[in-house]
This record gives sequence, structure tokens and C-alpha cells, in this order.
Amino acid sequence: MAIQLGANQYGKAENRVVRIVRDTPVHEIKDLNVSTSLRGDFADAHTHGDQAAVLPTDTQKNTAFAYAKLHGVDSVEDYALALGRRLLDAARAAHEAEIRVEEYAWDRLGPHSFVRRGGAVRTCTVTVTRGGARVESGVGELTVLNSTDSEFKGFLKDEFTTLAETDDRILATSLVATWRHASAERQDWNASYDKALDTILTTFAGTYSRALQETLYAMGRAVLEGDDGLTDIHFRAPNKHHFLVDFSGFRVDGLTNDGEVFHAADRPYGLIEATVVRTPEVSREQLLACLAVPR
Amino acid sequence: MAIQLGANQYGKAENRVVRIVRDTPVHEIKDLNVSTSLRGDFADAHTHGDQAAVLPTDTQKNTAFAYAKLHGVDSVEDYALALGRRLLDAARAAHEAEIRVEEYAWDRLGPHSFVRRGGAVRTCTVTVTRGGARVESGVGELTVLNSTDSEFKGFLKDEFTTLAETDDRILATSLVATWRHASAERQDWNASYDKALDTILTTFAGTYSRALQETLYAMGRAVLEGDDGLTDIHFRAPNKHHFLVDFSGFRVDGLTNDGEVFHAADRPYGLIEATVVRTPEVSREQLLACLAVPR
Amino acid sequence: MAIQLGANQYGKAENRVVRIVRDTPVHEIKDLNVSTSLRGDFADAHTHGDQAAVLPTDTQKNTAFAYAKLHGVDSVEDYALALGRRLLDAARAAHEAEIRVEEYAWDRLGPHSFVRRGGAVRTCTVTVTRGGARVESGVGELTVLNSTDSEFKGFLKDEFTTLAETDDRILATSLVATWRHASAERQDWNASYDKALDTILTTFAGTYSRALQETLYAMGRAVLEGDDGLTDIHFRAPNKHHFLVDFSGFRVDGLTNDGEVFHAADRPYGLIEATVVRTPEVSREQLLACLAVPR
Amino acid sequence: MAIQLGANQYGKAENRVVRIVRDTPVHEIKDLNVSTSLRGDFADAHTHGDQAAVLPTDTQKNTAFAYAKLHGVDSVEDYALALGRRLLDAARAAHEAEIRVEEYAWDRLGPHSFVRRGGAVRTCTVTVTRGGARVESGVGELTVLNSTDSEFKGFLKDEFTTLAETDDRILATSLVATWRHASAERQDWNASYDKALDTILTTFAGTYSRALQETLYAMGRAVLEGDDGLTDIHFRAPNKHHFLVDFSGFRVDGLTNDGEVFHAADRPYGLIEATVVRTPEVSREQLLACLAVPR
Repeated sequence: MAIQLGANQYGKAENRVVRIVRDTPVHEIKDLNVSTSLRGDFADAHTHGDQAAVLPTDTQKNTAFAYAKLHGVDSVEDYALALGRRLLDAARAAHEAEIRVEEYAWDRLGPHSFVRRGGAVRTCTVTVTRGGARVESGVGELTVLNSTDSEFKGFLKDEFTTLAETDDRILATSLVATWRHASAERQDWNASYDKALDTILTTFAGTYSRALQETLYAMGRAVLEGDDGLTDIHFRAPNKHHFLVDFSGFRVDGLTNDGEVFHAADRPYGLIEATVVRTPEVSREQLLACLAVPR
Repeated sequence: MAIQLGANQYGKAENRVVRIVRDTPVHEIKDLNVSTSLRGDFADAHTHGDQAAVLPTDTQKNTAFAYAKLHGVDSVEDYALALGRRLLDAARAAHEAEIRVEEYAWDRLGPHSFVRRGGAVRTCTVTVTRGGARVESGVGELTVLNSTDSEFKGFLKDEFTTLAETDDRILATSLVATWRHASAERQDWNASYDKALDTILTTFAGTYSRALQETLYAMGRAVLEGDDGLTDIHFRAPNKHHFLVDFSGFRVDGLTNDGEVFHAADRPYGLIEATVVRTPEVSREQLLACLAVPR
Repeated sequence: MAIQLGANQYGKAENRVVRIVRDTPVHEIKDLNVSTSLRGDFADAHTHGDQAAVLPTDTQKNTAFAYAKLHGVDSVEDYALALGRRLLDAARAAHEAEIRVEEYAWDRLGPHSFVRRGGAVRTCTVTVTRGGARVESGVGELTVLNSTDSEFKGFLKDEFTTLAETDDRILATSLVATWRHASAERQDWNASYDKALDTILTTFAGTYSRALQETLYAMGRAVLEGDDGLTDIHFRAPNKHHFLVDFSGFRVDGLTNDGEVFHAADRPYGLIEATVVRTPEVSREQLLACLAVPR
Repeated sequence: MAIQLGANQYGKAENRVVRIVRDTPVHEIKDLNVSTSLRGDFADAHTHGDQAAVLPTDTQKNTAFAYAKLHGVDSVEDYALALGRRLLDAARAAHEAEIRVEEYAWDRLGPHSFVRRGGAVRTCTVTVTRGGARVESGVGELTVLNSTDSEFKGFLKDEFTTLAETDDRILATSLVATWRHASAERQDWNASYDKALDTILTTFAGTYSRALQETLYAMGRAVLEGDDGLTDIHFRAPNKHHFLVDFSGFRVDGLTNDGEVFHAADRPYGLIEATVVRTPEVSREQLLACLAVPR
């Protein structure tokens, strides 16, 4: 029962790559946060301090910047695939390269002037192996709110339950959604992203919600139904609680609160996670087993 | 030479007030972060623990929420003035009440559905005294970038200077701008804000910059010229450095970088602050004296 | 090929539970951040909005606070096990409950006075199932630095490599380490934690490092060798780069930099992750398969 | 009534300077965050884009790093004075240089090994003018808690007041304290800091509190009484509310909460600021006037 090296990976995280396209007087900007990881046979670096197989994280950083020029950034997925393939070529000991990208959106002010949009961040995680590639796209920091058409009642109660049932509340969440593509060969990454984001927003606005879970599932179904090229979608949704302020203790005549004034709380928050899948390629048992794997 | 109490103030910071207007099926949302402070004769609380004159910060919080209903939030300035006047009425020992508000913008998705916009945060600081009120409006987290038409050269050099002069660089900053109104009586707070913000963005985009200082001054002039009701404007502008990535060490033929690939750095950052004033009502000596005041 | 619900979980995140033990005039404090999650058969909540099986996250929060009194917090592991068992009892549809705890340390100033220590945060993740429980302990925000005895050379080079080899550098990282216990029955959680933490620090200080990977592996081996009750340990180690400042461009006689002045950089950073295992109970293939599971 | 430039300053913020002293095998570490600002006659840079008088922020950065070697860091005050004097020498147009430093503490693990302590951050702000210098020292992120001996009652009530009076509560705050020295010539900066910090902690622990204001004043008095070289001290003290959890709604026999279980809330928070002065060199009217100055 020897002690030995288990799962490991290494790379350069959070390279802040900004690419300006200035082929014409009307510039374009791509503003990225790029993280790279290599996994493979790097045991000697751990056990003997031997770096012969190790492509330095500094070189990975250099390559991330260089590929913003050499390959360009038509879409984050496209760029990440190219970068991942390059790193796998350069590091022979690696079995796979994982590239994570966040893209920050800017709005145009002029031919070479921009204002950062804020709000949702576009993301992708691309995993390139010796045999192919997997692509996951997504969005983060997508904060949405319905000011009515949300209830929460009929729930299980025990002796610690004090929550009142409600027919009308604010439903708000800051979504992290990620969806996986059946193939790394698709060419329409930007159109695919735009459609998924639009479907999420439209479904959120149009769904009467009996729980955040129901809203997540509805959004997931709609995204998968709208794009055959997707295999599944995962949501991480903090329930950003908006508590109705209780004016009953105030000695002010006529001061009522019929769903009008709320306290937006920070912590704690409900945290709902759900996956909607087209083909259940991974069994529940596999999933639970994975939870026991050191991450 | 006795030891005694000096300047002091107290209040409730960061009340996260969300106001829904639901008089019609098409709801409106106001999403605020409200901080209150009282200044005045509260020495007994410090020196003898006597709270008789102290309106609790919990009550200030309650009032901030109640006034979102009782007075409403047509503009943050208008709401803050009403709240400040109320607190001054309620706390007889107070000489002035300061109300700070941040407003987070949301975009409409449907009649009662919204997505948080991100980007710029609207701000105001209102100070209500027994004799009147002062209003400062502003914007924060306004991140703007010009991808050309910015230079930096001809600067002072000493033996520690290594910076190269440049004719073409990225100019980017995350602006905090605040401007003061000549009167607290104006009624067009929202229009005034929209115009100031638009002037800042338009001037940023349209100004060739020989230094961030020059851009700030141009923006300040334009805002004051565009609104006679303003007395001055202050900018706090971190120079968000975008360093041109040096590809010269790479052994890759033809890999050049003519203003196309940048590393967006975090720290350190240049930090430029400038005020543009219509009437120099405060002398430079007064300003410098104030820097010595404990804040 | 129907669309259906996949993996899901829900709970209350970041309950800030503070427990004072005041049985004697010398008080004790436990300062916790507690997150709960339930996994199981909650499909109806997602697909039909039916909450009958759903123990509200608000109730989970209430239980977390109540158990700080009913069960107490001798150790975070012990408390989390009790809380997890309770939630599993209360929610019949749940198959497992996961409890995550962060503990913030305080130093004593007096019998009922404390100052927050800062630095390392103790953590645990306890998973209670119908058949047993798994316990993972850990530490986060453990920032350590060696000012010499660290080199990095002999690494793989390609055409994008510009990094110079070095015989002497600063090695610094902000460790997140988690280790798993073979049994949930052990009683010495606090002693086990203290020993693991001490082993990590001692090994870090005593190891000549040819790469951060080597240091991680050495620390992992030492922890497992020192406690037979542990099955494996995982490290997440951002390489907090300290770049030697180049004084060669300064026109100052005699200004040298022999490992004395460094710029502590923020981003990007190397990110090294490694697991050291006693019994390789999970195969590499399983691990890689898990990486494809939506998380 | 022309529009013109008002108060302005510029510099390099957040230089992360790490200085290792390795003259002997037992190394020392100084870990600093250094910000510089120059104020003076820099109008041409703003109004005409003329940089001839502008010592670049990049040069200020270089100087901050070089002075960590040339002058060393016996204390942050001493280092900041030297750096400020140098910058004022180098930039003839400057009237004053302000240097702000934060110092992060490390504990020793071995002769060249350290673990970051966390908790309180030591600070100083040094302002060097053509005629002299002013020194302010301080501490931030000093989080302290008393688990009893704190009350809050007898306060002013109005129609929005719902807070119950209490005889026993948790008092907790994350202090930012700054104190000013009568002279920039003192030599015992480190001893002075240690004594002030110790006095603050000892007084916090030993004071029965009828309001956070009373505790601040007591600490301020004690610090000034203990060091004749100080003129005043300022506290910024968020009241980190710990709310007693209400178990009365739980249907659990015997579950009481006699000051034992608290919810540590994030926002909103009471925010108390107070100054204690030896010589009231600044009048209240001056202070209030300064509040109207654009900062």
C-alpha cells in the first residue's frame, strides 16, 4: 500500500489577453481571461523534480498571447481549440490540454472607442485530447429577476421550519450556465451562444415559477430543444433572496408593503444546481462516484 | 492640552433597497445601495455612553426602506434629499445628514422581468443641513478604452526612468466621476445625469490624448460647459495599463505586434485625479489644509 | 432520445454561524461559514413545480444554527456530521447530504474578547449517505513563501519559450489542501487537523524545491505518512510569482538586485494541482471520465 | 466665470514591493503595497497635454522598488519618508508627495521560510512637502469581538424605530485606525506602532461598552495618553452585527438561545467614525468646510 502520485495538472491561470483588430479604421476588441492546463505523464516533476517534460506555464502564457495574433479570436471556442491543440503538440507528455476562457463584452462608442458592457460574461472550456476535443460553452454573472409570477408553497415541513408559504415573491438569481456541444466541429460558435443566451432570458421571463428548480428545468429544456448540437446544460443558480420588508412595526398610518419594497440579502443564499440532459450518457452512479474523487 | 472628541459621524451603510413599482402590469425596478450618516452633537454617546440623542442606525435603515415607499425613487437625488431631511428632523442633535446612494441599472426582459445591466453605477451624495442641502451626482465603474489616438511622450526623465516614449497606445480607465450641483432645487436629476454621462462618453471617444490628464480635463470642461447648473466635477481615473506583448523573443517568423495584442495588467496602476471647476470657490490653500484633516 | 433531468442538488450556502460557549466566564468562540446541500429524488420540483419532498433551504439554514446549540461545535467535522445526519433524516427524498464548513480562527484577548487571526481557514466537507459518511478535511488561504532554496531549470522549451532558467527564486503559494479520512468514525478531528497543518508547514520549510510540483508531492507524502487514517490529499497551489525587479536600466551606480527586491504579481499565475494517494482506489481512467461530467 | 483646473494629483498605486533581507542565512521579509502621489503645478499636462514636468508613474514605480534596496525598510514610515523626499527632489513641479504603504505580516517557519499571518494590516501615509513632512500611522482589518459586556439602550426612538433595547450583545468591528505624529523626526516608528496596537486591543478587551462610540473614544484616549508624540487618532468602525438567532419559532423543546448562537450579517452595517484629538488644531467649521471640497 504505497503512497504515490494521483491525479494532477498544471498550467497558467488568468492570462488577461486583449486583442485589437485594427485592419480598418473601425477597430474591434476581444477582451479575454485565458487559463490553460495540461494533464498527462508529469510524474517525474513531482517525484524527482525533473522538468524535462514540463512545458513551463510561462511558455503557455506566451502561447496564449501569440495565438491571439496567429490564430485570432473569431470566437472564444475557436481560439481555445487552436490554443489547446498547439499546447498538446508542444508538450509530448501531455494527454490533454484544457483551455478556459472568459470573454468580457464592450459596447462601441466610436471607431476605436469602447465602453465595457458589464453584466454577463461569456465562457468556454475546451478540452483537447490526442483523439479529439470536447467543447463546453456558457455564461456567467447573468443576473435576472422576476418581480412577480413566482411562488413557493406546499413544501416539506419539519420542526425547524419557520418559512411562510408565499404566492407572490421576487425570484432573482445570478446564473452560471454551461452547455456541452456534441461535436467540436461546429462552425457557428457565436450564433450558438447568442441563441442559447436569448433562449435562457426569454424562458426566464416567460415562465411562471413554483420554485427556482422549475425555472431552471424550463430554461434547460428550451435550450436543448432549440439546438440539436447540444448534449446537456448545467445551471448553478444562487437564489438571490429579496425579503419583503416588514413595515408592520412602524407607527406610520397607511404604510403598507404589497410586494413593493425589498431587502436584497447577501448571505446565506439558496443554491440550486441542476443539469438537463439529452442523452443520459452518464449514469447517476457514475456521477455519485465522481463526487468522491479528489478534485 | 486636554484630550477630547473631534470630528465624528455615524449611520447605517449599504442598505440594499429594492423598490418595485407595480401600479400597472408593467413593473419598474429601482435597485439601490443606500448609506446614511449623521453628524452633530453626539459627544455624550462617546464620552459617557449616553444614547439619548442617538437615533439608532437600525432606525436609519428602517427609514431608508420606508422612504422607498413613502417618497418613492424618481431619482436617487430626489429620494436621498427626502431621506436626509427626514433623518435630520428625527435626530435633533444632528447638524447634518449625509445620504449616499448607488443605483444598479437593469434592462427590461418583459413586463415584470429584468436582467441586470452591469457596467456603470450611478451614484449620488446628498448632504442635508439645517440651512439647506448640497447635491453631488456621479458615476462609477465606467470602464472605457481607446485603442488608438493616445500617446505618452516628452515626459520628465530621471535616473530611474526606463519607460519608452510611445506614439500609439491603448488608453483605458475605470472612471469614478462626481459633479456638484449649484442648487439642491433642480428638478431634472435624471436628465442631468443622462447628459453628463453622455458628454463624458462622447468626449472620451472624440479626444486625441497626450496623457490621461488631458482626457480628464477635456471631459470635465465639456460636462461643465453643457450644464450651467454644475459647479465642478472630479475624476478618479486609474490608468488601466494595457502592455503591448513583446513577441520579439519568440522564434516564430513573421509574428509581429503592431498594436494588436496586449496584456491587461492589474497592479500597479497609474492613478490620476483631477477636478475641473467653474468658480474656484475653494482656494488651493484650503484644499491643502484639508488634506491634513483626519478623515 | 428524450430531454430529462440530470444531476441536481440544492441547499443553503454560506450560513454565517457564530457559536459562543459561555458556560464559564471564559468564553469560547466558533466562527463558521456553513453550506448545506441535498441530493436525491427531487425531480418533481424541477419538472412539475411540486415541493412536497423539498425541505426548504430556509429550514436547512435554521437547522444549521440550531445544531450549533443542540450538538455544539467541538470540531467542524463533528458538527457537520451531526447536521448532515439530521438533514438526511428530515428529507426523506434525499439520498445524501453534503455539509461544507469553513472555520475562521480567533485569538484570545481576554475572557470574552477576541481578535480575528486571519491567515489560514480550516475547512471540511462531510457527505452523509443512507449507508454511511465520508469526511474530507482541509485548509485554505495558507500562504507560504520560501525566499531561497527554490530553482526552476531543465524544463522543456519550444519556440514560444522565453523564460530564463534560475537557480534561486522565491517560491510562494496560497495553498488549498484537502485530505480524506478512511473512516467517519475517528474522534480526534482537531488533533488530526493540527498534525496535518503542522506537517504541511514543516515540510514546506524543509524542502529544497526544483518545482512547486516537487514541494506539493513532498508535503502530500509527509501528511499521509504521518496519519494512517488518511487515504489521500489534494493540493491546489497557485504559484504566486515574485519577479526579481530588473535594476539594470537604472542609471544608479552600484544598484544591484541579488534576490532582494521582488514584484509580487497578481495575474496570470501558475496553477498547480496534485493529488497524493495511499491506495489508488480510483483509476486514472475513472478520473478522466469524471472530468467530462457536468459539474 | 471661466472653467479651470482645480485640485489634482497623480501617481502609481499599489506597487507590490517585496524586500528580502538576506545578509545572513536567516532571511527577513518585508511585504508592502506602496502607492505614490504627486501634487503641484501640473496644469500644462491637463490643459495642453504637455508632459515636460511630469515624472511618469512608471518612474515612481521604479523608484519605489529601488528604494526598497537603496534605503531599505526598517519601518514603513521610514521607507515612505525617504521615497517621498526622493520623488519631491526628482519632480520639480511637485509641491508635495504622498506615500501610502500597507504592510502584510509574515510569521517565520524557518531560516528562509514564512507563512503569511493574515489579520491586521499595518499602514502609513506620509506627506512630504518642500518645508517638511507629516506622518500618519495606522492599522486596518483589525477585527475584534467582545462576546459580552456590551449593551445598547436608552436611545432615541421615533415612529420608524423597531429595535429592542439590549443589556447583552456581541460587539464586533473591523477597525481602521489612523493616528498622526506631531513630528516626522521620531525614530521609534516600530515601537510606536506596537504600543498603539497593543493599547487598542487591551482597551477594547477591557472596556464595558454602552455603544461602539464609547469603545472608540476609550481606545482613542488610551492611545493618545500612552504616546505624547501623537496628536490625534481616527477610527472607522463598521459595526459587524451579530444577530441573536430566534429559536422561538422552532418546535423543539428546551432549545433556547441565551447569547450563544448568532448570525453574522454582511450588510447593512452600522458605520461609526470618530476622532480623538489632543490639540484641536482644526476647528469644527474647517472640518465641515472640507466636507464640501471635491475629493
